[in-house]
Amino acid sequence: MSLRILVLGGDGYLGWPTAMAFSRAGHRVAVVDNFAKRQWELELGVQPLIPIRTLHERLRAWREVSEREIEIHVGDLTDYAFVEAVIDGFQPDAVVHYGEQPSAPFSMISAHHAALTQANNVIGNLNVLFAIRDKAPEAHLVKLGTMGEYGTPDIDIEEGYLTVQHNGREHTFLYPKTPGSIYHLSKVHDSANIHFACRIWGLRATDLHQGVVYGVETDESALDPRLATSFHYDEVFGTALNRFCVQATVGHPLTVYGKGGQTRGYLNIRDTIQCVALAVANPARHGELLVYNQFTEQFSVQELAGKVQAAGRHLGWTVNIEHVTNPRVELEQHYYNPRHEKLLSLGLRPRLLSDELIDTMLAKIGENRDRVDPTAFVQNVRWAPATARDAGVEARPGR
Amino acid sequence: MSLRILVLGGDGYLGWPTAMAFSRAGHRVAVVDNFAKRQWELELGVQPLIPIRTLHERLRAWREVSEREIEIHVGDLTDYAFVEAVIDGFQPDAVVHYGEQPSAPFSMISAHHAALTQANNVIGNLNVLFAIRDKAPEAHLVKLGTMGEYGTPDIDIEEGYLTVQHNGREHTFLYPKTPGSIYHLSKVHDSANIHFACRIWGLRATDLHQGVVYGVETDESALDPRLATSFHYDEVFGTALNRFCVQATVGHPLTVYGKGGQTRGYLNIRDTIQCVALAVANPARHGELLVYNQFTEQFSVQELAGKVQAAGRHLGWTVNIEHVTNPRVELEQHYYNPRHEKLLSLGLRPRLLSDELIDTMLAKIGENRDRVDPTAFVQNVRWAPATARDAGVEARPGR
Repeated sequence: MSLRILVLGGDGYLGWPTAMAFSRAGHRVAVVDNFAKRQWELELGVQPLIPIRTLHERLRAWREVSEREIEIHVGDLTDYAFVEAVIDGFQPDAVVHYGEQPSAPFSMISAHHAALTQANNVIGNLNVLFAIRDKAPEAHLVKLGTMGEYGTPDIDIEEGYLTVQHNGREHTFLYPKTPGSIYHLSKVHDSANIHFACRIWGLRATDLHQGVVYGVETDESALDPRLATSFHYDEVFGTALNRFCVQATVGHPLTVYGKGGQTRGYLNIRDTIQCVALAVANPARHGELLVYNQFTEQFSVQELAGKVQAAGRHLGWTVNIEHVTNPRVELEQHYYNPRHEKLLSLGLRPRLLSDELIDTMLAKIGENRDRVDPTAFVQNVRWAPATARDAGVEARPGR
Repeated sequence: MSLRILVLGGDGYLGWPTAMAFSRAGHRVAVVDNFAKRQWELELGVQPLIPIRTLHERLRAWREVSEREIEIHVGDLTDYAFVEAVIDGFQPDAVVHYGEQPSAPFSMISAHHAALTQANNVIGNLNVLFAIRDKAPEAHLVKLGTMGEYGTPDIDIEEGYLTVQHNGREHTFLYPKTPGSIYHLSKVHDSANIHFACRIWGLRATDLHQGVVYGVETDESALDPRLATSFHYDEVFGTALNRFCVQATVGHPLTVYGKGGQTRGYLNIRDTIQCVALAVANPARHGELLVYNQFTEQFSVQELAGKVQAAGRHLGWTVNIEHVTNPRVELEQHYYNPRHEKLLSLGLRPRLLSDELIDTMLAKIGENRDRVDPTAFVQNVRWAPATARDAGVEARPGR
């Protein structure tokens, strides 16, 4: 069945391949972007590894390669009139929402960047909720959240909800969150707003708490060099494994924060596409908020660096690991046992991280070795200023 | 000991009497306001019962009456440069933060009002956190939140934190929230941001989850008619008991939503002043977020209406209760057992709601009977549009 799918943030690392994948599968796809992230890249002086065409050029290339059309709407999600007009006009069956400021370090640069991140993300998402409510109430919202919303509590992380027994009674809560950055907080606020929209307005939504994504390309982006997606390796927009692979390729030590014991969930960019497709194919009912933990395996940062080091050595390279002062305020040793069974039960077939996959990434990155700017590896965004006093990672509960 | 106390939202119903009380107690007080609420009143065409002088006039009257000076800073908390300059210049020991859009119905009028509420409240509060971090890290933030952040879960509501046993392990979370309006969500977002600032930056904060406040005057506002505070009885800015008292005074039926079984915590405006003073006198340590449930007793809406009806009849008035369609989406019958012991243990001596107190309120309101605009009692702000489908009050947890 062909659906109308609106992809918010369609110019991004994940939004663009998602739009192509839905288009190739025969759906009618429209993308929304305001190119804010390209502005933020200019602000920091960082660039994706592979040169990225404008979105308009990529859409023309996609038409040529696939003989399919993707619509484009250029505008800002914080402008309600724009959001309402797009949702009213397109009448989506599903709204896949990637359209947010995506970087934790970016949100921690200054008060300005913090306010920008929360205003942009929270108000944009709120506008999407109102526009769906008033103009397309049958539409299913598929929202990209993050595993980082949960933080690292001392108990198992369930998928979205936690049933609590207390003083002989029981209640099921949206799983309580303890996020670690202003960016992660913005996603927590989004989740609370979406939960409200489902409870009070009967909206239907799926909140995907995604792990750290790695990978250079997808089936669709590999079809033509003009279809490449914006792979970042800098410390602000690049994720851990992607950055390590680029560092290994140019002979730069892998920069591990502290002891590298921080454990997180990871997934291949191709599995992101697969998970979002499964979420769209299995919509929530009215009044229901589905929450999935979207990752396929978990590693400590040190384990990840070790894998990249081994793969590089296999190619005859010298790969060193450098333990640098952690600019973040986070626990380096912690309990971490998040469940991630719901997407598997919907049919997810994970592409796990293998030596071969890292080899492929290193080869692909190697083709673009000359473009790597090693100064981008360190951006010096600190979570707390040197003046911050007694900074810890756990607030002492009140007396 | 004389402290420097900065009151944000110093023109408001609670901010103004708080500023006077701290000033009279010998502290150095500065107030901040941008008069946004007066604009919102103009937008809706509603006015406080008692004519309210400009803040500048009230400060002059206060100087005359008390021989004490309160400083004023006019500006917007969403303007970081302003917030930073005020906090840097005044170097507060305590920042008492009332400076937010305070109405749930206002936040539900439209997408615009929802975005305004969350952007105003969340970004303003975030700016305060950054300015304290960078310019006055010793300052203790006393933030006004609301009991409405919790919603009405099926288990006891603890004061701020909930310890959960799960699969043989244990973790203490910030108490999970299930708020009932866009406004209440904004306060939940604030609480999460404040928790982060304490955990990551070592800030010191107290989050007061306040119940529904009632009352016309405080010890200080009673000193001179020019010092009156902005008592609202309209459906958007007026709280339940205040509105009922005004309705009884002018012979309008008391408008109870649905069956009136909704139970909430209540407190006297004089107890608000007392609680905030106790919070300031007992600051959190660095890295600590104290959370108090700030109310003195709980009633259902129907009980409250019954008390006002009885007091009115005692004065020989005819007071009817009218059950109107609930414009909100909320449970009318629910479990409600919130704890509220911490402020008592700090020394709070509650002024409980008595027949005599309602009599006093009715008498005071009676003096201003001619100013009551009965059209303000009903503002027709609905929580969900007629088109909203399957709206419930509990999202079905995911499959």
